[in-house]
Amino acid sequence: MNVILSGHGNVGTSMKESVEMIFGTVDKFYPVEFHKGEGTEDLIRKYKNIINENEEETIIIADLFCGSPYNAASIIAIENDSVEVISGMSLPICLDIATMYNSSNSKEIIEHVKKSVQEYTKSFREQLILESEDDL
Amino acid sequence: MNVILSGHGNVGTSMKESVEMIFGTVDKFYPVEFHKGEGTEDLIRKYKNIINENEEETIIIADLFCGSPYNAASIIAIENDSVEVISGMSLPICLDIATMYNSSNSKEIIEHVKKSVQEYTKSFREQLILESEDDL
Repeated sequence: MNVILSGHGNVGTSMKESVEMIFGTVDKFYPVEFHKGEGTEDLIRKYKNIINENEEETIIIADLFCGSPYNAASIIAIENDSVEVISGMSLPICLDIATMYNSSNSKEIIEHVKKSVQEYTKSFREQLILESEDDL
Repeated sequence: MNVILSGHGNVGTSMKESVEMIFGTVDKFYPVEFHKGEGTEDLIRKYKNIINENEEETIIIADLFCGSPYNAASIIAIENDSVEVISGMSLPICLDIATMYNSSNSKEIIEHVKKSVQEYTKSFREQLILESEDDL
């Protein structure tokens, strides 16, 4: 399975480096950058270069719902049933996918991520309260 | 208010660049990087350099719950009531904070983000189904 990390600027590249600092090497994680002066067509070309190379299932993790990286990915997904697209790229999403992508299919992974999003974003002060309640 | 973007590697720096590509300049958004060979003490020192400079309210957005950037931020937050910490750094969280940080306090912002996380992460195929149901 291919996993494409796609965001504004070079955040996809940085995110892959973060994943590898924690998880180790992730083959088939492909960052796609998007810079000023580029457009949807550039993103589509970059996605197709990765997807067409090995014709496997692909998950495109885009940074922002309805941003250019997401919209370009959606155009690919309409044409190609083996492409899944999800927005809101974050390190916990990427780590969950790194853990699953060799043993699960893309639909199972998307379902897992959608169920887990509330767990990724925790407030320290809220956790403190929850933990002190647990101690009672 | 200070907003610190803190993650493994240089993802905080990339994230700030992504925010500025979409939103424009965000004064008082401070990236903090965390590289191999560094530890919690280095992160705490970097956070304190930013926070002590102007003694305003601070939100630290860390990449991963219980990762080093989050844990170091929590140590600061225990000592300093004006510091809020939230995990799961993503572009939509950062953009929401960019929109709010000049007019809301940190507690209101954290509450808003916690309520919004489900909206940040959308699956394209799920959206397609929802939209076609809306058309019925």
